[in-house]
Amino acid sequence: MRKPAVILLSGGLDSATVLAAARDAGFECHALSVSYGQRHLAEIEAAARVAAALGAVQHRVMDVNLAGIGGSSLTDLSQVVPEAPSTGIPSTYVPARNTLFLSLALGWAEVLEAHDIFVGVNAVDYSGYPDCRPEFIDAFERLATVATKAGVEGQGMRVHAPLIDLGKDEIIKLGTQLGLDYAMTVSCYQADGSGAACGRCDSCRLRREGFEAAGIADPTRYVARA
Amino acid sequence: MRKPAVILLSGGLDSATVLAAARDAGFECHALSVSYGQRHLAEIEAAARVAAALGAVQHRVMDVNLAGIGGSSLTDLSQVVPEAPSTGIPSTYVPARNTLFLSLALGWAEVLEAHDIFVGVNAVDYSGYPDCRPEFIDAFERLATVATKAGVEGQGMRVHAPLIDLGKDEIIKLGTQLGLDYAMTVSCYQADGSGAACGRCDSCRLRREGFEAAGIADPTRYVARA
Repeated sequence: MRKPAVILLSGGLDSATVLAAARDAGFECHALSVSYGQRHLAEIEAAARVAAALGAVQHRVMDVNLAGIGGSSLTDLSQVVPEAPSTGIPSTYVPARNTLFLSLALGWAEVLEAHDIFVGVNAVDYSGYPDCRPEFIDAFERLATVATKAGVEGQGMRVHAPLIDLGKDEIIKLGTQLGLDYAMTVSCYQADGSGAACGRCDSCRLRREGFEAAGIADPTRYVARA
Repeated sequence: MRKPAVILLSGGLDSATVLAAARDAGFECHALSVSYGQRHLAEIEAAARVAAALGAVQHRVMDVNLAGIGGSSLTDLSQVVPEAPSTGIPSTYVPARNTLFLSLALGWAEVLEAHDIFVGVNAVDYSGYPDCRPEFIDAFERLATVATKAGVEGQGMRVHAPLIDLGKDEIIKLGTQLGLDYAMTVSCYQADGSGAACGRCDSCRLRREGFEAAGIADPTRYVARA
């Protein structure tokens, strides 16, 4: 019998690769997407496609309205999404996003009696987000162990971040080896309603450079330019 | 100038006391309630009354739909709320609730550039909830420090749980000293639309015994019985 695991699935390149890796490791995959007041739902639709294509046993979407607390150009329409590489922590940083997402995954893991959570953070391309670092994952794993029935009852809770040391090119090579079709995924911070990417934001730039460095053809569909 | 702090405010007895304590300690109080698919909104209304009465500079309500992942009689209407004292972890346990609530508070704290979060958990009356123990608070504080800009930039994030070692009677004495009117608060797991308490659930029982032990008249409004 396969062990259940909760996979945080955004619909982007990284988390789709993580789902492919969790399936490859033999887990029964329960995919969780979080709708947090972001600009578009193209990535949630991408997540549903990826979950179905990779044989997740179920895919849930949880709604959290982060726009209420503001603080990011991804949830605050009055801010402009940056198109140039930024230094330091970029304005696309969503406050405590990975802490929140992992908390939701942890709650669902408890309900499912799962002891494994997968998340697609990676340190190399972390763009200055504090909650994409290995020490963050370690701290959350410790928290998860004391926060839950599993912890009280002496069982552990494991947070897997299989991409944590990989560059975008290595992630793309891994997913390609696992048979993942990246055309299904959406990484762009401001994709249009059909999921077509802007080609200019930080996320598009990192993705395009990753395909180039991996020597793999980029299947991303970009918005047509005038 | 007062330092800003985020106070998790449920509308119950404990968190109202925490707000009174944070105000007394000189913080500029930003109150945060979470609406998580619970049975009634009486406690959110109570939170709004308490925030206004205690001079919080603002009160936000964030929506999270925990019902989607099930697992608690507080969010799953197909389960029955227990009326007898339970042993072990009760069915009213909401998976990862305090982890989630603190994550939301952490996100707002980042936006406000606050370094202090207050939460009303207490270990003595924790009813078997794993995420009401001191080791949980400590683990979250460590997580908060590595998860955030404040952590990256070398500043700390403090999670205050001033009730952690207090019994319900001591909490009630503290709030009463601080001038808090507990008639504004709602603790009942199944309060009616007007905020009247059932008088029979675990939460009602702990509250009633607290007033008795404190030797303070119980101002709670109970549902009339046939």
